Amino acid sequence: MSLQVTGQQYIGGARSAAGSTLLYSVNASTGERLPGAFHEATPGEVDAAARAAAAAYPAFRSLAPAQRARFLDAVADGIDALDNAFIELVCQETALSAGRIAGERARTSNQLRQFATVLRRGDFLGARIDLAMPQRTPLPRVDLRQYRIGVGPVAVFGASNFPLAFSTAGGDTASALAAGCPVVFKAHMGHMATASVIADVVVRAAEATEMPRGVFNLIFGDRIGEHLVKHPEIRAVGFTGSLRGGRALCDMAAARPHPIPVFAEMSSVNPLILMPQALERRGAAIAAELTASVTLGAGQFCTNPGLVLGIRSAALDAFVAHFKTAIAAEPAQTMLNAAGWHHYVDGVRKFADTPGMALLAAAPAHPGQASAELWQADAELLFQPDGRLQQEVFGPCTVLVVLDDAAALQRAIDALQGQLTATLIADPEDLADAAPLVAALEHKAGRLLVNGYPTGVEVCDAMVHGGPYPATSDARGTSVGTLAIDRFLRPVCFQNMDDALLPAALRNANPLGIDRLVNGTHTREPIVA
Amino acid sequence: MSLQVTGQQYIGGARSAAGSTLLYSVNASTGERLPGAFHEATPGEVDAAARAAAAAYPAFRSLAPAQRARFLDAVADGIDALDNAFIELVCQETALSAGRIAGERARTSNQLRQFATVLRRGDFLGARIDLAMPQRTPLPRVDLRQYRIGVGPVAVFGASNFPLAFSTAGGDTASALAAGCPVVFKAHMGHMATASVIADVVVRAAEATEMPRGVFNLIFGDRIGEHLVKHPEIRAVGFTGSLRGGRALCDMAAARPHPIPVFAEMSSVNPLILMPQALERRGAAIAAELTASVTLGAGQFCTNPGLVLGIRSAALDAFVAHFKTAIAAEPAQTMLNAAGWHHYVDGVRKFADTPGMALLAAAPAHPGQASAELWQADAELLFQPDGRLQQEVFGPCTVLVVLDDAAALQRAIDALQGQLTATLIADPEDLADAAPLVAALEHKAGRLLVNGYPTGVEVCDAMVHGGPYPATSDARGTSVGTLAIDRFLRPVCFQNMDDALLPAALRNANPLGIDRLVNGTHTREPIVA
Repeated sequence: MSLQVTGQQYIGGARSAAGSTLLYSVNASTGERLPGAFHEATPGEVDAAARAAAAAYPAFRSLAPAQRARFLDAVADGIDALDNAFIELVCQETALSAGRIAGERARTSNQLRQFATVLRRGDFLGARIDLAMPQRTPLPRVDLRQYRIGVGPVAVFGASNFPLAFSTAGGDTASALAAGCPVVFKAHMGHMATASVIADVVVRAAEATEMPRGVFNLIFGDRIGEHLVKHPEIRAVGFTGSLRGGRALCDMAAARPHPIPVFAEMSSVNPLILMPQALERRGAAIAAELTASVTLGAGQFCTNPGLVLGIRSAALDAFVAHFKTAIAAEPAQTMLNAAGWHHYVDGVRKFADTPGMALLAAAPAHPGQASAELWQADAELLFQPDGRLQQEVFGPCTVLVVLDDAAALQRAIDALQGQLTATLIADPEDLADAAPLVAALEHKAGRLLVNGYPTGVEVCDAMVHGGPYPATSDARGTSVGTLAIDRFLRPVCFQNMDDALLPAALRNANPLGIDRLVNGTHTREPIVA
Repeated sequence: MSLQVTGQQYIGGARSAAGSTLLYSVNASTGERLPGAFHEATPGEVDAAARAAAAAYPAFRSLAPAQRARFLDAVADGIDALDNAFIELVCQETALSAGRIAGERARTSNQLRQFATVLRRGDFLGARIDLAMPQRTPLPRVDLRQYRIGVGPVAVFGASNFPLAFSTAGGDTASALAAGCPVVFKAHMGHMATASVIADVVVRAAEATEMPRGVFNLIFGDRIGEHLVKHPEIRAVGFTGSLRGGRALCDMAAARPHPIPVFAEMSSVNPLILMPQALERRGAAIAAELTASVTLGAGQFCTNPGLVLGIRSAALDAFVAHFKTAIAAEPAQTMLNAAGWHHYVDGVRKFADTPGMALLAAAPAHPGQASAELWQADAELLFQPDGRLQQEVFGPCTVLVVLDDAAALQRAIDALQGQLTATLIADPEDLADAAPLVAALEHKAGRLLVNGYPTGVEVCDAMVHGGPYPATSDARGTSVGTLAIDRFLRPVCFQNMDDALLPAALRNANPLGIDRLVNGTHTREPIVA
């Protein structure tokens, strides 16, 4: 393997290994220690990384958007250029398949290029200009111009389940860098070698495109997360993981002397609603498709459909029979890491201990691997606000709830907590009077799907991967898609500022050629002074 | 006086007075109790108000934007139609002049109409459409469409210093209503009768334009603020007031089982920087203008210039002589209420107790009134992170700091906390090499002014009345100007949704005629299916 994995932090563009505590990466399939060791970052290194990011911030945020776009494109090119040895390394660390990792790599570089496109398009700048009205009575209006800048250094916590797309150069990092915010990235313990290789790519791209040193920093270790979130130079946090972990970061950030926002993508059971006509016409096909979505990647997706709602009928019974057969036929899968597997086993055991829950089907067990399971729960359990059915169990299982009628279904939806997604499996007749259902789901989730499965998350302008608490810590953000950049921007207004001192986005000549809101009208025209 | 002031809450469109604790409004100039009594809201009434808002939310948020615009316009018309008896009432409660109140009324109705314009313009909807690409390889793309909806019921806390523009139907209320969020408004204790009259206008306008009952609710009392912020139906908070009060609300909101965002506009000393050439050429004029800004409205503005920075020179000395004379000649003014006056007296007493601070000038004292004061502080005091100079003293005083040279000025700026505004008083020669200064100020403040005074805050698209902590609790928002609506919106994505079930903003035909980002390009064209 030609890959260099030094096991050191990246701080201000240089490697650093001040501490003596060593961490090891593990082959997720065998449990064996992989070659090489990683130095846990010391508190001093965390401080140095945050300071390096802060030192890079003034220059980085002031770069022309097109320059930051070149940097993101260079990172994308570097990721695409990694060879099969890299794919193999990621597979070893995560037990994910080579096909999945190749696909995730393409998604990751595509995501970086999309933010480069956003930077060149320029609408993220939110340029607004209200020209002076010296003759206005009773008071004249002075020239006012607004655009948006990066909030400052951002801490990003890598996700366990997406070693590339939600990790080192994943969506949080890409959107923060696009916004002009330097990043301190804390690698997930589950794929430190992957993080090290990608960090090399990012730092080399930063050098090649002449970004300020410290624009991207990498640290290893779990115990240092708290130091990072509490560091005075850090101005925002991106996180993907558990509700417990995300909420802990939110609480730390809120209690700082200078509180900062945390964008944590946490816990969602992603309700999927089976409508009567669809079940009637294509129950067997739905059972097969839903099984594929529930078990995809060993169920290790934030958007895994963990709750299936349907109205009692013969068609539903027939569907359930197919669903049970399909679930029982699923092969066991290795999970991302032993801790995740223990959590899964624990989660389904709690189902078993919950009165009102029954196991409908289980795939054959295999030591150390996750087997698909289908559970059924009494509808009353949905109305326990923090109850078992509202809690995500990360893995290849789902829970069916059978409701008596359409009114009971509506009540069930109203009882749900916030979700990343909500899905309707429906035929045209089902949709004829579905407007109230859609309205109720819209209030609960960031993304509503019809006749699709939530496990596919397209990276595009229109995507929302977010939703009300506890799906995320702030329903106003998304962590997938180009709108993710908004989380890391703040508006600034210039009053009566000389044209020469204005940022390019706001100058009379409109040198960036961007769309601007001028005196209440959107235009790309320059302003004739 | 023909005004009806019932002293009761407004809950779900009806008056309510369940509690027996009575509150009284006071003539701010005489300290005498004004006629009438206000019922402090009971916890049950707070609960009822939040539930009424929640009940109104599904219908209100689903209204066509133009319908909400009609509501806002009707509120504006109702406010404009209030007679002189109303102006007199506000003057009695606040000790502000009739001219100021008439101006603030115009600003308030103008602000409501601007949000109506935003609703009709439709760009607040953030419509984005990525059309299906069934032929894409390796995977087809499905149709994805995004827009933004109101987050849910919003609690608004009225400000002491703007009985109209930042209160009952002020900027927070107007932007929340525009976003489709019903409001529970907690009146400020300093102008409860004013709040009651304006609430009548809002409720009547809601009825006339057929808004759902509960779209606007009014409650009285201070002790019930905590109940309101902790209520599970409340999804966001708007607040204008002290750092202590705002931070307390933020901490409560962050500790909720379901945390919610708080947009608190809190504390800013609004640094004003006197550049050498400007001082040289027009020091006397600047002294007069700055005195007017410092003492305007007894200094009771969030944007009051409380910190004046200049570089040591003969021209600065000459300016200071003029400034002292001007401050000393200012008449004493009655503040908004006795508590505010005590805070002011306390604040300047703390200056006197701070080593390194000296009183340069004070206007003649008058019992119970605020006198203008000019202080000077040693530059070292700026570098105490939570020190005296970083704390807002609400009233007609300011602090001068004289720096040795341009480098010291830059260091002083770097040491500042977050601010609502930062101002450069500068001549063309001063601006020739001011880019680093502007960049540093941009990092500190929400609004940068050149040759203006921060106390004037235009309500327009480009305004930012916000800034890094402690100026506000979230630098990504503004509480003045049309961008304020963004605070109360969250994105929702529809995947493969039938055209008939999509919101109007996202339908193929583009019935709202709004600008949309379609496949990465901004357009108003309909989509040909």
